[in-house]
Parts: sequence; structure tokens; C-alpha cells
Amino acid sequence: MKHMSEHDFPGKLIQALGADNVIVDSNELKPWLTDWRGVYTGNAQAVVRPTNTQQVADCLRLCNEHRVPVVPRGGNTGLCGGATPDGSPANVVLSLDRMNRIRTIDPIANTLVADAGCILGNLRRAAQDAGRMLPLSLAAEDSSHIGGNLATNAGGVNVVRYGMARELVLGIEAVLPNGEIFNGLQTLRKDNTGYDLKQLFIGSEGTLGVITGVALKLHPLVGVRSVVLAAVESPKQALDLFSRVYGACGARLQAFEFFTDECLGLVLEQVEGAQPPFADRHGGYVLIELADTADEEALQNLLEGVIGQALEDGLCQDAVVSATLAQLEALWRLREEISEAQRADGPHLKHDISLPIERIPEFIDSAERRVRAVSPDCRLFIFGHFGDGNLHYNVSRPAGAGKEWAAQWEGRVAEAVFAEVADYGGSISAEHGIGQLKRHAFHHHKDPMQIRLMLQIKQVFDPNSIMNPGKLL
Amino acid sequence: MKHMSEHDFPGKLIQALGADNVIVDSNELKPWLTDWRGVYTGNAQAVVRPTNTQQVADCLRLCNEHRVPVVPRGGNTGLCGGATPDGSPANVVLSLDRMNRIRTIDPIANTLVADAGCILGNLRRAAQDAGRMLPLSLAAEDSSHIGGNLATNAGGVNVVRYGMARELVLGIEAVLPNGEIFNGLQTLRKDNTGYDLKQLFIGSEGTLGVITGVALKLHPLVGVRSVVLAAVESPKQALDLFSRVYGACGARLQAFEFFTDECLGLVLEQVEGAQPPFADRHGGYVLIELADTADEEALQNLLEGVIGQALEDGLCQDAVVSATLAQLEALWRLREEISEAQRADGPHLKHDISLPIERIPEFIDSAERRVRAVSPDCRLFIFGHFGDGNLHYNVSRPAGAGKEWAAQWEGRVAEAVFAEVADYGGSISAEHGIGQLKRHAFHHHKDPMQIRLMLQIKQVFDPNSIMNPGKLL
Repeated sequence: MKHMSEHDFPGKLIQALGADNVIVDSNELKPWLTDWRGVYTGNAQAVVRPTNTQQVADCLRLCNEHRVPVVPRGGNTGLCGGATPDGSPANVVLSLDRMNRIRTIDPIANTLVADAGCILGNLRRAAQDAGRMLPLSLAAEDSSHIGGNLATNAGGVNVVRYGMARELVLGIEAVLPNGEIFNGLQTLRKDNTGYDLKQLFIGSEGTLGVITGVALKLHPLVGVRSVVLAAVESPKQALDLFSRVYGACGARLQAFEFFTDECLGLVLEQVEGAQPPFADRHGGYVLIELADTADEEALQNLLEGVIGQALEDGLCQDAVVSATLAQLEALWRLREEISEAQRADGPHLKHDISLPIERIPEFIDSAERRVRAVSPDCRLFIFGHFGDGNLHYNVSRPAGAGKEWAAQWEGRVAEAVFAEVADYGGSISAEHGIGQLKRHAFHHHKDPMQIRLMLQIKQVFDPNSIMNPGKLL
Repeated sequence: MKHMSEHDFPGKLIQALGADNVIVDSNELKPWLTDWRGVYTGNAQAVVRPTNTQQVADCLRLCNEHRVPVVPRGGNTGLCGGATPDGSPANVVLSLDRMNRIRTIDPIANTLVADAGCILGNLRRAAQDAGRMLPLSLAAEDSSHIGGNLATNAGGVNVVRYGMARELVLGIEAVLPNGEIFNGLQTLRKDNTGYDLKQLFIGSEGTLGVITGVALKLHPLVGVRSVVLAAVESPKQALDLFSRVYGACGARLQAFEFFTDECLGLVLEQVEGAQPPFADRHGGYVLIELADTADEEALQNLLEGVIGQALEDGLCQDAVVSATLAQLEALWRLREEISEAQRADGPHLKHDISLPIERIPEFIDSAERRVRAVSPDCRLFIFGHFGDGNLHYNVSRPAGAGKEWAAQWEGRVAEAVFAEVADYGGSISAEHGIGQLKRHAFHHHKDPMQIRLMLQIKQVFDPNSIMNPGKLL
């Protein structure tokens, strides 16, 4: 008979962290074992909810000593199952939700330092209250944690201007699997002292350690905005328009979003109150937002001037400029409601891909041929952050087919899309990461030499392979 | 008796790469064995000058097989001896100077792909000819190679707006010590497929492999500029002014440079034709540049409005706005001539440090106390990229002391400055890197756990430790 304590790992966690911080009851565990869409479900022997970095370190040290797998969990809003445990009953889920303190916010230095469990939307509002802006912005921002945003290198709507989450990071505090604290929570703008180790944690999806604190850049508030919706005949015209607008408006360009006429059609069909923006329908549409610190009139004049000239030069077919905030929001709604319209239409096969921007028009043509060779009558809904080369390339059942079509065709369609992406030197995951969802495709498409280097780096940080098994690598 | 070929490693290099690409004559080798300041000199058995990536791979594979140390060399303009071989006669210097081809430049996608040996200034001009801007700009840009700029994560004058070299990088091609080619030369803006390995090469100072190609972001041209020189009573006032200007001008803020009255005094004394900018002398001076894509008048009005209000609110003491390009250049000269004035004054002890911006005023006070405890009558010349928290903290001999003072006091002064930097959570190398120059201080001040991780990563990439021995790690 083994000694009881050898088996009672949850008991050790409770002893180390206190009963308040450890969930072991199987009913209470349940909500922690699935992702928010309910696509993935796993197992765990315990959920740990530490309140400070030292408790994270204590938890990881214990798990590492006992070779217990650890699944870090932020806001659980990723769409790839990265924060959902696999089927092993040995897993410990480590939730950062109780580490939600803003440590400092400094509008003079333009920095924000916070616990990793802070909700992104709360940080954005805190920055705004201090007269500054945290530009990272995405649909799930009122649930997602900043630690998860960094662990997945989140994107969002303002990437064309401010870059991905990575570009906003000044410092990271993290705990290594052995319980050591990586103290990189500095706010320096410049520091050339060796390899920039924090970059490894960004986008590592919890496979190297647990991010516990973040130091971020803040930007000046951009208080005035101006928006136009331009109709284009083709993706090629959208590309030329992008070049023109970016060159003329420079850093004011806050968003450059594209959607095809099929997307507009779906929104008009599925979303109550949605109004056609133009008398005629066109091949596609581009939503352009400029923003600046002050002088709304100058901004509006600039945008109208640039678009007026673009119309004259044949770089777009028609355009509507927002004159009021209500109009601005109505134009944005046409873009933002696409996901909701897709949901209402039934399951769509979604592919979050990126491409060299200049090759998007060519890609859209050849990818359609490739996908139609698989499923001739499928419906395509293509939209996304055109200015970042990021397309949401979504495929749905042919008219008349049942909703089971999606599950039946998922693999073949993804194979076609990803193969085409690979031919164009694109990425099979632009902003959502790999998680469980794309692990197979990742290993199929990524350069084997890069995967080898990643595995060796993983070995440096996590020699016992306890961190987030079954995700990414 | 050993077989001749066992000893004839240069012969093997010549066999693999061709005689035109290998220098072995001891007189011809000489110019390759020192840095441009002549501070460091080393040894080598050969200099290799490949013309393409495959030749770099062939050279590294051969060196790796024979455990021959390799010293990658770009434009040789770093100031830390990072591209100068150590004293071993076994070294091979690998110069990228013949790899100087621009591969593609795309003003629609806003990307530039080039060989690592391209001179930065040439790339800047090529971008400008294509109607775009490569914002990386520094004093040595007409000699430095872009590969070296990335290997050292160069900074320069526009960091406050565009970030360090790292933030301009979309992709990297590099050769690993074993001759494998790391093919990461993509131009994607978004790619969340695993650890971002290219980040490790940036700032690694040639210790992990050799960067052979780079893909960079281009920005819109900013064709109009407006400059003001503001007089401040103290670094604290400069800090408040920075916050005001950044908040009001946002992304237009192209530079925010600071220098003390001692720096101005030295320029007026040493540089012919330099004119005092104000009737009175003040505690310090701030040079502010705004830049935009168009509308010079609006930019000038914005700057004048912000500075006028700052004067009213007591955020500066006096200000002069440039009305002509000649005036703009004269104002910049006061800042740019500081290094030349220092050179003329005799050897200065230079420290390229960075600090949390909000603590600069406090640091300047306490660092002076610490340095004066070492050398009570030394002269301090403090200036730098204030908006990035980057100070050039330079110390010179007391009035009346001989020029030998610098060499005698170098160690003690650096120790005092770096200890104070450490107390403030700053960096002992803001933008120049470690090389040979700061290796001792780096190992003394850097977190031992981070150094351990760096050494383990080095081991992954360079298991035989052939890359750039004696530098950084």
C-alpha cells in the first residue's frame, strides 16, 4: 500500500496555496474544463486560482516536482482550445483570474504595469481615464485577460497602426515551470543587453511558463475619428486604394478593413436594421478609419480630399463619408456584424490566414479555384484586416445543403485553403495562434527546422514538459 | 607527420568559396582586424567575403566541422568591438560587404527585402525613391550594414516615433553555425505560428548565427517637418513638457532630444559658427521635431500652439521655432555637434544608458552625487533621446587635469554610473549593445537567471560555440 500523500496531489496544492485557492470538487471543476464555445472539453484533477506571483511559483514548483501537467488559463476567449486541458485526469488548470490588479499607470512615461489576469477592456478604460490609450482592441476585450492576449500575441482592429500585442510590450514577468520567477517587468524603451527573452513568452501559448505581469506602452489618446466606406470593384482596387490612403494619411490610418459583396449580402439578410450603404452593389467594400489627437475638421477634410481624388483617379467606385457619430457607427456595424450574420446562417468553416499584402488579389482568385475544386458550389465569405494582410477566409455550405455540411467538409476545405496559403508564403494562423485547433496543420506546414528549434527552446524552459501539453508543439 | 590538409584550413575555405572570396595574406588581413575607432585589435587566419547566402552556409559548415571561431562583420561601425576578432589566430572574419543587393522594394505592400550587407543609407534612399520611408536613421548610416543594425538592434534618432530596429523587422534570413539556412524572410504583418524565432537573432550580436537577409516595414514619407528648441530650467520640466507635447501631437512627434547647458557651452566653445539660441542661458534644452505627410502650415501651427500654451503654463522658459529649413538645421546642429565638441575637448567617458523615463530627473541628481563621490570635480555632459529614456551620460576630466585622466578613471566612473543605473532599474546598454566593451559589466549587472537562459539558447543554436567568441555571453 502506497502512502496516502503520494496520491493526494490536490492535497499538496491545498497545503501550499490554501483551500480557498484550489478547486477539487468534480462539479465545481466542470466549468473550467471547456472553452467558451463548448468545442473543446478536457479533464483536470484541480483548478488553482492564485492571487499573486509567489503562489503561481509555488504551484508550478510543486507540479514540476511531481511531473503534473499545467494548463494556464486567461479569459478563455481564444478560439483554438489553447486554454482547455486535454483528456488527462492529471491536469492542473492554473487560472490567473484573481490576479487582476493594475500595478502602476503613468501618463508621463506612457506606461501601464498590470497583473496578467487583468481584463483587457478594464486596462483600456484605465488608460483612457489617465488621458492615454492602450491600443490593443478586439471583440472579446471585456472578457480576455492581458496575459492571455500576450501569450497568444493578439491582434485586433488597430494593428495597421499600432501593431500586434507584441509591439506594445515593454516587459514581462513570468514564472518558469520550475517555479523560478523571470523578472522582466521593466518599462524601458531601449535595452540592448543580450537576447530579448520576453519575446519568447509572447505567442508561446503557455508552453514555456506562465505570464504573471505585463508592462505595456501607452499611446496618446486619439479623440477625433473620421470614417469612410468605399466601394471597390475588386481586391486589386482595394490594394491600390490602400497604398494611396496610407501614403497620404500616414500614421492617422487607424483601420483599413475589407469585405466582399457576399459578406454585405449576408449582413443585410441576417441582421435586423442593416441598411445597404450604396444604391448599387459592388465587388467589395473597404472601411477606412482615420484618427488623430485633435481637429476633427482637418481630419475630415483630409479624408474627403484623399477619397475624392481616389474616386477621380478610378481607385474606387463610390464612397460614403460619415458626417455624424451615428453614421460612423452604422458604417462600422456593416463590418462588425459579419461574424454575427455568419453565426445566424449556420456553421461556417473559418480560416484566419495572412498573406503578403501585395498578393491578396491573386490569392483570392486562385484560392477560390482550389476550394471550388473540392466543393464547387460552396459559398465564400472573405473579409478582414486588409491593411495587415489578414483575411478571414470563410467557407459555407452550398445553397440547399444541410448544416451537417460543415463538419463533413471541414478537413478537405482547410487542407485546400492552407495549401494555397503555403504556396503564397502566407501564414495559417494570423492572429489566433495554434492551440489544439491547428496543431496538425502547424506541424504539416511549418518549416521542420523551425519546429526543431522551437522544441529545443521548449526543452530549455520546460525540461519536464509539464506546460500546456497537446498545445502548439 | 600530419597530412598537410589537416593544417591548411584557409586552403579549405579557398577550395569551397573560391580564391576571390577569401583573404589570407597577413598584410591584406590587417584592416579587417580592428574596429573603426582603433580601440580594439584582434587576430584571424582568414577573412571570407561571400557573395550569396549559400556561400555563407558553406563557410559556416566548414568552420563548424573544424571548430573554427567565426566573427561576423557588417559595417564595423558599432562602438563596442562586437565585429572585431579576439586575439586567437584561429578566427575567421566573415564580412557581409559583398552581399549588398536590394531584393525587392514594394511601395504598395510597404516592404523592403535586402541582403544583410546593404548599407543603411542606401536602403533609406531607395525607399525614398519609391515614395516610402525606412525610418531607421543614425549617425553611421552611410557605413553601417542593415544586418549589423539588426544584429545589434540599432536605435537612432526616430525611436520615439518608430521604435528600435526590432520593430521594423518583418522577417530574417540567417545561417546557423552548422550551415543550415533559417528561412524566415517573410513580409507578413501577422504570423502567430509558434515562437517568434527571428526575435532571437535581433540583438544577438552575431553569437547565434549570421543574418544574411532582412525584410523590413516601410512607412509613409513624412515630407513636412517643424522644429522647436525649448529652454527648460530642469530635467523635471523637460519631462512635463514631453508629456504635454506627446499627448497633443501624437504620432507626429518625430524626435524629443534633451541636452544640458554644459553640452551647449561645449558646442559654443568648440564648434566654429555655433550661435547661442537664446539671449540667456538655461538649465537645459529640448529639441522637438514634428513631421507629417503633408500641410506644413498646419504642422507649424500645431507646434506653435502647443509650445505657446506650454510657455504660458510654465512648462518651459523660452522657445525658438524654426521658420526656414536653414533655421531648422541650425537648431539640429546644436544637438548633433555635441559628439564632435566632445571629441575636440579630448577623451570623454561615455555611457549609453536607459532609464524609466519618469525617473530621469531624479536619476540625474543622484547619479551626479554618486559620480562626484568618485571624482568631485569631473565635468558632466548629459544629453540624449529623452523621449526614449535614453541618456548619453558622459563624464570628462576636471578643469586643469590632463587628458590621461580618462583612462585612469574609466573603471571607477563606469562602476558608479552603472551601479546607479541598476538602482533605478535601467539598462547599461540602451542602443549600442555589449560586444567586448561592456561584457564585464553585463555579466555583473544582468540577472544571472537570464544569463543562464541565454547561454542555454546559445547552446541550442551554436553547440560548438564557434560564433563570435568573447562577445556578449
